[in-house]
Amino acid sequence: MVEPVGNHYIVARPVYSENLFNEEHEKLHRYHKTFWDHLKIYFRCSPQRVKKSALGLFPIVSWLPAYRFKEWILSDIVSGINTGLVAVLQGLAFALLVNVPPGYGLYAAFFPALVYFIFGTSRHISVGPFPVLSLMVGGAVIRLVPDDSAGNSTSTNISAINEERVMVAASVTFLSGVFQLLLGILQFGFIVIYLSQSLISGFTTAAAIHVVVSQLKFMFQLPVPGFNKPFGIIYTLESVFSQITKTNIADLVTSLLVLLIVFVVKEMNDRYKAKLPTPIPIELLVTVLAALVSYFADLKEKFGVAVVGQLEEGFQAPVAPDAGVLEKCIGDSISIAIVGFAVAFSVAKVYSIKHDYPIDGNQELIAFGLGNIVGGSFKGFASSTALSRSGVQESTGGKTQIAGIISAFIVLIVILAIGFLLEPLQKSVLASLALGNLKGMLMQFKEVSVLWRKDKYDCVIWVVTFLAAVLLGLDIGLATAVAFQLLTVVIRSQIPSCSVLANVGRSNIYRNRKDYTDIYEPEGVKIFRCSSPIFFANIEFFREKLVTAVGFDPLRVLRKRNKALRKIRKMLKNGELQVTPKGLICTAEHTYESDEELDNNRIEELDQPTNMTDLPIQINWAADLPPGITVPRVDIHSIVLDFSAVSFLDFSAMRILQKTLKEFVRIDIDIYIAGAHEGFLDKLERCAFFDEEIKSSMFFLTIHDAVLHILLKKDIASSPKLKLAEEKASSNNYYVEIPSNGLRSREVTKTELPKGNAIDVTSLDLN
Amino acid sequence: MVEPVGNHYIVARPVYSENLFNEEHEKLHRYHKTFWDHLKIYFRCSPQRVKKSALGLFPIVSWLPAYRFKEWILSDIVSGINTGLVAVLQGLAFALLVNVPPGYGLYAAFFPALVYFIFGTSRHISVGPFPVLSLMVGGAVIRLVPDDSAGNSTSTNISAINEERVMVAASVTFLSGVFQLLLGILQFGFIVIYLSQSLISGFTTAAAIHVVVSQLKFMFQLPVPGFNKPFGIIYTLESVFSQITKTNIADLVTSLLVLLIVFVVKEMNDRYKAKLPTPIPIELLVTVLAALVSYFADLKEKFGVAVVGQLEEGFQAPVAPDAGVLEKCIGDSISIAIVGFAVAFSVAKVYSIKHDYPIDGNQELIAFGLGNIVGGSFKGFASSTALSRSGVQESTGGKTQIAGIISAFIVLIVILAIGFLLEPLQKSVLASLALGNLKGMLMQFKEVSVLWRKDKYDCVIWVVTFLAAVLLGLDIGLATAVAFQLLTVVIRSQIPSCSVLANVGRSNIYRNRKDYTDIYEPEGVKIFRCSSPIFFANIEFFREKLVTAVGFDPLRVLRKRNKALRKIRKMLKNGELQVTPKGLICTAEHTYESDEELDNNRIEELDQPTNMTDLPIQINWAADLPPGITVPRVDIHSIVLDFSAVSFLDFSAMRILQKTLKEFVRIDIDIYIAGAHEGFLDKLERCAFFDEEIKSSMFFLTIHDAVLHILLKKDIASSPKLKLAEEKASSNNYYVEIPSNGLRSREVTKTELPKGNAIDVTSLDLN
Repeated sequence: MVEPVGNHYIVARPVYSENLFNEEHEKLHRYHKTFWDHLKIYFRCSPQRVKKSALGLFPIVSWLPAYRFKEWILSDIVSGINTGLVAVLQGLAFALLVNVPPGYGLYAAFFPALVYFIFGTSRHISVGPFPVLSLMVGGAVIRLVPDDSAGNSTSTNISAINEERVMVAASVTFLSGVFQLLLGILQFGFIVIYLSQSLISGFTTAAAIHVVVSQLKFMFQLPVPGFNKPFGIIYTLESVFSQITKTNIADLVTSLLVLLIVFVVKEMNDRYKAKLPTPIPIELLVTVLAALVSYFADLKEKFGVAVVGQLEEGFQAPVAPDAGVLEKCIGDSISIAIVGFAVAFSVAKVYSIKHDYPIDGNQELIAFGLGNIVGGSFKGFASSTALSRSGVQESTGGKTQIAGIISAFIVLIVILAIGFLLEPLQKSVLASLALGNLKGMLMQFKEVSVLWRKDKYDCVIWVVTFLAAVLLGLDIGLATAVAFQLLTVVIRSQIPSCSVLANVGRSNIYRNRKDYTDIYEPEGVKIFRCSSPIFFANIEFFREKLVTAVGFDPLRVLRKRNKALRKIRKMLKNGELQVTPKGLICTAEHTYESDEELDNNRIEELDQPTNMTDLPIQINWAADLPPGITVPRVDIHSIVLDFSAVSFLDFSAMRILQKTLKEFVRIDIDIYIAGAHEGFLDKLERCAFFDEEIKSSMFFLTIHDAVLHILLKKDIASSPKLKLAEEKASSNNYYVEIPSNGLRSREVTKTELPKGNAIDVTSLDLN
Repeated sequence: MVEPVGNHYIVARPVYSENLFNEEHEKLHRYHKTFWDHLKIYFRCSPQRVKKSALGLFPIVSWLPAYRFKEWILSDIVSGINTGLVAVLQGLAFALLVNVPPGYGLYAAFFPALVYFIFGTSRHISVGPFPVLSLMVGGAVIRLVPDDSAGNSTSTNISAINEERVMVAASVTFLSGVFQLLLGILQFGFIVIYLSQSLISGFTTAAAIHVVVSQLKFMFQLPVPGFNKPFGIIYTLESVFSQITKTNIADLVTSLLVLLIVFVVKEMNDRYKAKLPTPIPIELLVTVLAALVSYFADLKEKFGVAVVGQLEEGFQAPVAPDAGVLEKCIGDSISIAIVGFAVAFSVAKVYSIKHDYPIDGNQELIAFGLGNIVGGSFKGFASSTALSRSGVQESTGGKTQIAGIISAFIVLIVILAIGFLLEPLQKSVLASLALGNLKGMLMQFKEVSVLWRKDKYDCVIWVVTFLAAVLLGLDIGLATAVAFQLLTVVIRSQIPSCSVLANVGRSNIYRNRKDYTDIYEPEGVKIFRCSSPIFFANIEFFREKLVTAVGFDPLRVLRKRNKALRKIRKMLKNGELQVTPKGLICTAEHTYESDEELDNNRIEELDQPTNMTDLPIQINWAADLPPGITVPRVDIHSIVLDFSAVSFLDFSAMRILQKTLKEFVRIDIDIYIAGAHEGFLDKLERCAFFDEEIKSSMFFLTIHDAVLHILLKKDIASSPKLKLAEEKASSNNYYVEIPSNGLRSREVTKTELPKGNAIDVTSLDLN
């Protein structure tokens, strides 16, 4: 009954098996789409669809005409200038991570922003260099163009190496752009869901560690070669510390000073966020100051510090990527493509939720893909978005990608006109600026303890990702972490907390019998729950748990019974047993005989159902058997499997489940399955799960339906236990009266409610 | 009520929320083992435990003293001799797959069998060479010692290459033995569960294809170099077919003849299994015949066929593995270790179930590990068990590993004494014998169509495994297949078939509302079911589906309402609105104003709960609002989430779920969760899921409990709809009478059943 009566749950209905329920309640025949239907829909082509996709490919067509010029242009300009300045500095700083001359970072900050303006769907992210990605490109660069080990660092040599490195960075970027574009076209934007928060957090923390280690050489100004191989970070640290005495003190002091100032001012920006009209642009101030000091104090000459030096003037002609390089860095490109997209997309999503507009993962992939293809062609390196820079763009009032294009314009000015002002800047200052952006990432260490308390698996994912990415390198580390993460999902799905249930409180509630005192277990019935999907990796475990729960192995019982039957047949033949109306009576001493060995065919016979048709009497296994014959005691007659949490069952599992159920059926134990999902039965039917031993009639709607059915079937009402209950009930005034007349409804008539009897609803009263 | 009344399901109990239920039914406090407890138990060390492990390490100590000498010895000897002869032939044939001289196959058939006798737990498997494994070792051999490309195949050169190859095979075998031993000691025997039936089937089929292709060169007698790299099989085929004109016709004819004879006789063996006392040992007969023909017809001289040639006499001194080789073949060794173990274990398990004795996965790992370490030291190659040979051992009557040791003795005789008899045997005959064993594996192709009909995922796993293993090679292919398989589990777990439920048949049954006609959906209530675990990869999907089901995005509604409130405040302040007892009345024309732009802080304000405390009147969002102010219509007041299939919830999912629920709560929609698992609530509690907005009181035992609670709370009884129902009910004779006296039981009293009222159980009658 759906209407509430006081605060009561009162139900009276027939006991429903799935079959009965579906007979009584007409089921609509719904057409379920097949695999091919889905494919057809996916590839359907209508003019509207084509138009929509075409428009979707150029989001600018939608948002630019709707631009509220008067309201927005000013904040977009302010935001654009701020972001542009940050982009210039970050471009220079992150170029050090790529191991290319700083000037190339400006290209990475310029071209992708232009492309994103046209193709991007997020209005607030600032597209350009991102430290983690720069480092990943740098890894490939170092592997393909290692430092000259001979040590003859003549300037021609260095510039040749640099040129080669720029080429490698550009090629890797180009290739990762192609991958992103392909993924976008193939609608694979969903792959980011496989990068969980814990994984991204562990990964970016590891990347921060890599950034720190890779910047040490600039801070100390030491000639450290790059090691892009598993455990490379250890080699790098070893190299740094073995040369620590050769540190350039001027560089070290500058670095520490810059780091300190940036850190303190950023903290103040954070703390007095509300009071400050705009955050202090400390990075810009420090850069200008450092460049001035370096220029006037002539640090390069006096202390031998490394400076940015001459930037490339203007643009370089676009180049085709190097085919030889492409082949060698497929792996790097894939990880760069995925990480770049994942980071940008997650930042974009935050803003899209905050400002309530839609973004499209596949279109983002296309935008970044094209951005990287163009950027790579013009010798830039891979771009995504830096969290800090996007934060600047949004918080200084950026409304649309107009701010992005203005920031690109600022970068353009630096590239074309005022780049020379940065020439005297120390590389160690850039390194410190790069480190200044890492606080947030490094603070993620705090998550570990939180995760440990809340979810062990998530914590392990974090730690494994972190360690793998730190030790094995970012690309292999990421692959390892993703594989490990998938494994944890499998393990979680795979560990079913199987439990035996019992009725709690004498109504229709079944709970773990270990948890409650007030329980009732119907005699001879086991209610077994599996709280996870069942598939190849846990079906054996499920079987084991079930066998443990019932207390015997059905196959073994079946074999013992068949062996016993064989003996009985032999004894009957030998006249050692006599059939009487009371049962079998032993008439002669049975000579002891060891378990005979059985050849293979006869072993298989033992697994067949027991066949007593040729015997003059049915053997009752629970009663006394002739002497010398024993079979294991089986004290249950029914098993109810609660499958309400079995969200899927694969084919391996189905085969073993079928075999197990059959073994139970063959030793006369009834199996019932309760709470199976919509579609579960159909699937079993399709897979020929049912036969003359396993029937679809074993499916019941709920555990309680199955238990009621069992009780009725086994006629437990005649047991002494229930007699007591009946007596109790009859002395009870709280009953349901069902008169024999006046049953009007279809359902009631059909289900044949017992007429003229008082239906007992006193279950609450029975203990 | 647990006792059956007719075939009826009749329940009367209070509506239970989780909290109420746990108050009423005492919950036992069980100590749940923590992670550390498990660790402690795992590493606990008691004298019994130590003794048991020590005994477990040498299974022979248990089974040998119990050996029934008189009964078993004869069948063990017969079986041993048969198996031994097969082992000799297979050893020779499979050595060709490893690319080492045939004689080394005998070592692979001898040493591991010895070790397994002592350490193994299976009584029926025949330990020794296995084609798939031989091929995998062969892959490593070819990669590390490629054919001499210069083509100067002088005999010294060939023998040097062969020696090197034997060394590589031995080292790989040794290393894979070490891995197996380690896995066994670390109790990692469970890893085989990750190799599903479909995967093993696809993999062994692919291996069969590799075997066929690799034997072509012996059948045609062509100088084909080995290609162990991705797509190597294509290069091999290309090489074979480009040289096809150089085929040695004598070898080809012999091969085809042998293949035909073996195939036909094996078919006959199968067909007349019952009638034949023992299967015809056709391989042995063919070998003897072929050796005789080759010797007397002097095929080697006359037709230039390749023969086995001189076998190594006796044993060779044990060698330490080559450290250089070890380093280069770690990957191969891992896959060899896992595949070898997986195959042997699955065969062993079949026999252990058939003959009803326990086997121990970890001990098997130790046995095979030691076997391979010893075998590798004596220049053998990796061993596992061949299905065909184990079939011979068991079917000819083998009872214990005594048969195994006798078969090893036969191999020993061949090694020491009669090996020279095999010298004139053609290699092409051996190749054909190897191919003769593949029928079963190749027949597995038939599974594909069966799988496609029964389970698409399993079919895709088969095909992907097969293609990956054929094209990428067995080792990379296996890794790819396992990763892919894990992904399918994640995908299966991840695609929740979310559905909206409705009451079917007016009792306590809730089903997909699309499936039935006879449904009832309480007004303003959505019942939403998620039929899978919820974790990082599908939480977003879950949220989307939920938003689609309810028909609006709660965050958007909340923001619109907050914006509307802001406007109302402004209008009140401007005197454009007046508060009257009837509500707000607009007193002045509101001047149109575009949605003002909000700065960032104010945007965040919009996500806070609506706050009307400062207003003189509570706004009713469903009623008419002042002109110019609109909020989205929300026509539901409660959502019931059915979590009975949510077997786990990870931390990422929990955070997003919490956020989503909060959004609903903030627009005054009540959320209820029904059917959550044992332990689910505790976990949420531990993770600080609950606060003043999301309370643990939202958990109800079943959907029906939650629905009844909602109906009572929303007082739907006063709605016209129910009035009708009441009228109907009063004219109905089928009712439940609950007198005011005589309530005896604790439960009934406590739950305060309405006294003196007729409780309506006529739900069946209402439509």
